Amino acid sequence: MKLEALREICAELFEKSGVPREDAEIISEVLLVTEMRGVKSHGLMRVERYVDCLLSGGIKPRADIRIEKDSPSRALMDGGGGPGIVISYRAMNLAIEKAGKTGIGMVCVKNSHHFGAAGYYTMMCAEKNMAGIAMSNADPLMAVTGGASRTIGNNPFSYAVPAGKYGAVMLDIAMSQVADGKIQIAKKLNQRVPEGSFLDSGGRPSTDPDDYFNGGVLLPFGGHKGYGLALMVECLAGVLSGAAVTKEVKAWNEEPGKSGNTGHFFLAVDIEDIMPSEDFKARMVELVEEMLAAPRAENAGRILYPGQLELEREREARAVGAVELEDSCVESLERTAARLGASWKGTNKMEGSSE
Amino acid sequence: MKLEALREICAELFEKSGVPREDAEIISEVLLVTEMRGVKSHGLMRVERYVDCLLSGGIKPRADIRIEKDSPSRALMDGGGGPGIVISYRAMNLAIEKAGKTGIGMVCVKNSHHFGAAGYYTMMCAEKNMAGIAMSNADPLMAVTGGASRTIGNNPFSYAVPAGKYGAVMLDIAMSQVADGKIQIAKKLNQRVPEGSFLDSGGRPSTDPDDYFNGGVLLPFGGHKGYGLALMVECLAGVLSGAAVTKEVKAWNEEPGKSGNTGHFFLAVDIEDIMPSEDFKARMVELVEEMLAAPRAENAGRILYPGQLELEREREARAVGAVELEDSCVESLERTAARLGASWKGTNKMEGSSE
Repeated sequence: MKLEALREICAELFEKSGVPREDAEIISEVLLVTEMRGVKSHGLMRVERYVDCLLSGGIKPRADIRIEKDSPSRALMDGGGGPGIVISYRAMNLAIEKAGKTGIGMVCVKNSHHFGAAGYYTMMCAEKNMAGIAMSNADPLMAVTGGASRTIGNNPFSYAVPAGKYGAVMLDIAMSQVADGKIQIAKKLNQRVPEGSFLDSGGRPSTDPDDYFNGGVLLPFGGHKGYGLALMVECLAGVLSGAAVTKEVKAWNEEPGKSGNTGHFFLAVDIEDIMPSEDFKARMVELVEEMLAAPRAENAGRILYPGQLELEREREARAVGAVELEDSCVESLERTAARLGASWKGTNKMEGSSE
Repeated sequence: MKLEALREICAELFEKSGVPREDAEIISEVLLVTEMRGVKSHGLMRVERYVDCLLSGGIKPRADIRIEKDSPSRALMDGGGGPGIVISYRAMNLAIEKAGKTGIGMVCVKNSHHFGAAGYYTMMCAEKNMAGIAMSNADPLMAVTGGASRTIGNNPFSYAVPAGKYGAVMLDIAMSQVADGKIQIAKKLNQRVPEGSFLDSGGRPSTDPDDYFNGGVLLPFGGHKGYGLALMVECLAGVLSGAAVTKEVKAWNEEPGKSGNTGHFFLAVDIEDIMPSEDFKARMVELVEEMLAAPRAENAGRILYPGQLELEREREARAVGAVELEDSCVESLERTAARLGASWKGTNKMEGSSE
């Protein structure tokens, strides 16, 4: 489907949900780029859920952003319960602006909402020759090590650094051993999930997807390491910003009309004054090539640098000017368009495809 | 063994290795506190190896530290090939000083050496009501995802935040699924190592410790997630600082007389101006108690917050004024004392023990 058409319809849908045009375009762009990168769980399939929250009042369409505290290298931002993506885009831009002046910029955000793919914001830094870190807390879905209940969020964490001809080294992860979405897919395909992924409602290890959906709980990746990293995000994005913490975070219309009060943490580090950025990128190219040149393990696939697949997919989508959507995503966009009185029919065919 | 006696003998050993008294006391203190925290792999058993490097010239006893770049919130430090612990202690203090003035302080370090336990430096922040992050690169011991060779360091990462009556939430991890030391223990006990921990020299998965010691390679924890995080540390601590990167890092006398040129990254974030630190700590106490109150999974042990065991052990050691060393650690200290002409005999008995 043509990028231009998707960009336009998404912006229109958010505008029809009450979001000012400029902000609607930001949300549309972030979701579309994420879709192009192949991170479909955080791409255009999210439009419908965001619109749900906008119409119910769980997300306020107008982001009444206020800077509560401000100093040359730091700020505390109150997102006013607006769209998480708009707030985060502004927050990371502010961090970048501060880093451009003082070398480092940190912005803490409270009173926000689900911010989409964390990697979008760190890539904003990499594109400006900066290193970036982005984190968000989330409503609890995951057990702590030794625990059997949904106690902490599967909190996203991303970093990115510029890497010359390789674009950027970018990691965007959540803290569970397997994503919720992977268990859904296993259920559809009637497959088992690898051991260590989740516990059933009785706190027992299980590999049967049904056990997860009947009150099970995700496990952190790497045991106490993933738990500890999820807690780092909770401390920096949630506790420090003054946002809601763990079970107080209400996302996705659990309480329609009430803001999720999600918290974020953004850090931008300018490279230039520590090392000429051209030198940094040359060093990154060497490092990436060292990783890619490693001898292959038995039965292993291609060796990649973090973010490589996403970058390749995005470049391809931009080259052809189109991206292929999943059927369920097209249907969801059509449903949302009909709900908002927009006349739009999707097609799941790639532009230029012979089908 | 009495803390006071250990503190003194360690300082004496480093002084006899040419380290100025003040710096010798810093190294002694960092190693002793780490020992008290029960992180024995990074405690007093390291004295002998550090002394080795000092005597061979791989670590210069006098840390000729120079600040190459300086601005209110950032600095680039050249450690001059001196002791990593002294350099890192000074670097984190500089980050804390900057954070006290501007809210945030970042110090990049090159030309350093093995810095001991990363958690010591982040705890320096927590004790000053700041959040801290510390990272170091290291000589490569670990495969990248899909790879079969020692391509990237098992790079340490730590964060800490103050947590009121719970002291601090502190995580100090390396990036491998299991530590090198755990495989050594398995070998001694003639046990197998859990699957997914390492590959043998042919790039095949193995659980036999001998396969690891015959040219095997550690695997990152959580697959691509651990690989991506190890690479983050390499980028921020190694590439950005201008230090050696991956195989150029020479630690532990692989090339006696030559500095390891290890790189570090330190970040201190003052809490006070974002949120009153008393409020922050009250929120942290709530968060910690939520984690500790989680219902227990089947067959699970005690639920802990990150850093809890270390803190409990340190408090106990300080209360009794003594710490129990492993026999091999006592022997190593005695050997080092004899080598340096210090008259010291250890005993592995706790002060006040009836044995």
